[in-house]
Amino acid sequence: MERIVECVPNFSEGRRAETVAQLVAAVESVEEAFVLGTHRDADHNRSVITFVAPPERVVEAAVRVVQRAAELIDLREHAGEHPRMGACDVLPFIPLRDITVEECVRLAHEAGRRIARELSIPVYFYESAALRPERVNLADVRRGGFELLREQIGSVAERAPDAGEARVHESAGACIIGVRPLLIAYNVNLRTNDLAVARRIARAVRGRDGGLAKVKALGFELAGRGVVQVSMNLTAYEETNIHEAFEAVRREADALGVEILSSEIVGLVPQAALDRAAEHFLKLENYSPDIVLENRIAQALARKKA
Amino acid sequence: MERIVECVPNFSEGRRAETVAQLVAAVESVEEAFVLGTHRDADHNRSVITFVAPPERVVEAAVRVVQRAAELIDLREHAGEHPRMGACDVLPFIPLRDITVEECVRLAHEAGRRIARELSIPVYFYESAALRPERVNLADVRRGGFELLREQIGSVAERAPDAGEARVHESAGACIIGVRPLLIAYNVNLRTNDLAVARRIARAVRGRDGGLAKVKALGFELAGRGVVQVSMNLTAYEETNIHEAFEAVRREADALGVEILSSEIVGLVPQAALDRAAEHFLKLENYSPDIVLENRIAQALARKKA
Repeated sequence: MERIVECVPNFSEGRRAETVAQLVAAVESVEEAFVLGTHRDADHNRSVITFVAPPERVVEAAVRVVQRAAELIDLREHAGEHPRMGACDVLPFIPLRDITVEECVRLAHEAGRRIARELSIPVYFYESAALRPERVNLADVRRGGFELLREQIGSVAERAPDAGEARVHESAGACIIGVRPLLIAYNVNLRTNDLAVARRIARAVRGRDGGLAKVKALGFELAGRGVVQVSMNLTAYEETNIHEAFEAVRREADALGVEILSSEIVGLVPQAALDRAAEHFLKLENYSPDIVLENRIAQALARKKA
Repeated sequence: MERIVECVPNFSEGRRAETVAQLVAAVESVEEAFVLGTHRDADHNRSVITFVAPPERVVEAAVRVVQRAAELIDLREHAGEHPRMGACDVLPFIPLRDITVEECVRLAHEAGRRIARELSIPVYFYESAALRPERVNLADVRRGGFELLREQIGSVAERAPDAGEARVHESAGACIIGVRPLLIAYNVNLRTNDLAVARRIARAVRGRDGGLAKVKALGFELAGRGVVQVSMNLTAYEETNIHEAFEAVRREADALGVEILSSEIVGLVPQAALDRAAEHFLKLENYSPDIVLENRIAQALARKKA
C-alpha cells in the first residue's frame, strides 16, 4: 500500500461490543482496508474505529460502514453525554501517506454524495471539506444534535444539508463528513498536584493564547496519581512536533520550579514524529529516513522486486 | 522476510567500480538476498558490501560472492594500506532479526566449510565463530597479511586453517569468517579544536578505561571543520544505546566547559535505537513499537492477510 488515507468514523453506540465488531467487519469486507484500532466508550455511548485504505478503496469502506451503522444503530433509542446527530456521527478523512488534502476532499465529497444518494442519509461537510465557512467547525454543525436537526432541517434554510434531501434519516439521522490533519494526542505529566500549575502552563504553550500555533492544550488533574497533566493536541506535527511541545512545557515548568515527571502518547504516533524527536535531542546532523536499517531493507526489497 | 541475517563482506579491491558491481550482482543472484549498501575506498583499495538475507539463503549468497571475488580479484597484484589476507578478506555474519548468535555461528561454519571445499580457499573463524581462543580477535588472525600467511600456512602449526587444506588459494588467499553483533558507529562533535579534550572524553566514556562497557571510543580532529570528535562504536546498543553514549559525552564535556556541537550516525542505525532515544529524552512512559502508526499498519496488513 503506497498511498494511504486514514478514516476515523465515530458511531453513536458504545455499549454493545457486538455492534462495534460488526462495524469493523464492514470496513474489512473491503479488500485493502485495514482496521488499526477501535475505542468504545460506554459513558459517552460512542465508539471510534480507526482504519486505513488506499484512496481508491477508502470511499467504498466508508460507505459500507455508514450503511452498517444505519442498519444497527437507532438514534431514537440512543442516549449519551456526547453531542451527536448521526448513527455514524462524524466521518473524518485524514491524508496519511502520499496524498494531498485536496485529494482527500474529493474523496470525502464522493463518499458524502454516495451516502446521501444510496443510503438516504443527509450529509454535512466540515473542516477542509466544508462548502460553507459556517460549517468549518464541527461543533457549529452539530449544535442541538439529532433532535434539533430533525425539527429544523426541512424548515430552516441554513440547516439544509450539503448533500441529499432536507430530511433526516428516520433512525440514522445525518452524517458529518470532513477532512482534517493527523492529530497527535500528547500529554506531559508534572510532579505536582497543583492544578493551577498545569492550567497556567497549558495557557502558555497553546496557540489560542499566544503560544505554539499548532498546539491545543488543557490542564487536568490525574487524581489517582496525585499529579497534574498538560494534555495537548498537536494539529500539525510536521510544523510543531512532540519534542517542541515537550520543550515548551519544560521551559514553563522550569520557570515555575516544577519538574516534568513523564509524558505519554495517546493513541498512535507517526514514526517521523519519534525520529524527529531523537534527531533533535541527539543534535543529529545527518538524520534522514535512509540511515535507518529497516527502511533500507524495505527499499532494497522494493528495488529488487521492481 | 521474518528472520534476517546481515552479512558485511570486505573485499581487497577498492578501485574498480565494475568489480564491486559484479560482486553485488553475485549476492543478488540469490533470491531473497538484498544489498543495502556498498562502500568503496580507493586509498585502502578495499570495498565493503552490506547485505541481508533470511538464514536459509544467506550461506548461498555468501558462498557465491566469495566465489565471484576469487574470480575477479588477484591478491598477488593487490596493494593497499589496509591489512588483508584474502580476495574476500573478512566475512562477518550479524544476527539482525529473530535469530540467535548460536544460529549465526552454525551458518558461518557452514559457509566456511563450503568455501573451503568448493572453492579451495582456506578459512579461519573469528569472534563468536572462533574455534580457538587465539582467533577471537580478527587482527590476531590477520597479522602479516596474505604474504606472511602464504609462507607459514603449510609449515607453522598454529597457522593451520579451521577449514580446508593448509595452503593458500593462489590468487584469492584465505577467508576469515565470523559472527559479531550489530555495531552502531556514532560520533559526537565538540565545539572546540582542542584534540586533548576529545581524547580525554573518549577515555572517560569507553569501556576499556572504565567507562561504558559496550562503548569503544577514540578522539579525533576534524581538521576541515576546526572541531574535534569523539568517535564511538556501540557494540551492544540494546544494552548501551546512542542516547546513553551521547549523555555520557555530554556529562564529560560539561565538566570540561565544552559544548556539544552535533552528532552523527555513520552507516545505518536500527529503528529501535532511535525510538529508544526519543523515549528517553521525552520521558515517554508508554512507548512500545505498538504506538507507532506505521507498525500498526504493518500489523493490520499481516493480520488480515493471515
